[in-house]
Amino acid sequence: MNGLHLTADLYDCGNSALLLDQPALAALCEAEVARVGLSAVSHCWHAFPASPAGPGGITGVVLLAESHLAIHTWPERAGVTLDVYVCNFGADNSLRAERLLQALLAAFAPRRQQCQRLQRGTQPEPGGA
Amino acid sequence: MNGLHLTADLYDCGNSALLLDQPALAALCEAEVARVGLSAVSHCWHAFPASPAGPGGITGVVLLAESHLAIHTWPERAGVTLDVYVCNFGADNSLRAERLLQALLAAFAPRRQQCQRLQRGTQPEPGGA
Repeated sequence: MNGLHLTADLYDCGNSALLLDQPALAALCEAEVARVGLSAVSHCWHAFPASPAGPGGITGVVLLAESHLAIHTWPERAGVTLDVYVCNFGADNSLRAERLLQALLAAFAPRRQQCQRLQRGTQPEPGGA
Repeated sequence: MNGLHLTADLYDCGNSALLLDQPALAALCEAEVARVGLSAVSHCWHAFPASPAGPGGITGVVLLAESHLAIHTWPERAGVTLDVYVCNFGADNSLRAERLLQALLAAFAPRRQQCQRLQRGTQPEPGGA
């Protein structure tokens, strides 16, 4: 169950058209998942309707054999939140996770970003919480 | 874009049958999402085949208007990893996220757990990373 979970919250994305384009987002994610050597097993996407604040964002997940990739876009702020979570069942997938995140950062081209890194499933001893 | 992301990695779950039952997992998630006042907009699930290590796990996501709930089960270890991520667009959903996670913890009944808590989207100043 141990694995690496990377989060990235992106602001002022240069490629703002991508934040509104569900087919392009889905194609980008599927292509980059495959390119780094991870395995997609399912996916789901949802496009939010426009509101007085602006066009609606897109939210989606690619389920991986290794865990998941999640994306939520915020077009009114040219923002995106990303999660790349991979378990290390059978192999250490940490480098693949890093490469996937870097590829997505390059595609969105944010001017600012906030990244966090979690180690998951590190087996606390009985009695730990 | 600001929000709360809760992760929980569960071990030795007492309710081990649930880790193999995709319809029951999906129903649990949908019911608890609605009960705490969050809004499901889509979902996807995948059941892994059995292997020599034991029965296959289940992986799934409920996309929310507020972000997402993700679950991956590890039956061979009676383990589960959970993500509850909510943004605070329009309202502070932190308490709903906490209630959802607590409901799922109660359903899986782990003997041990490792929980982490991330604040997301906290708007770094220009130049921050």
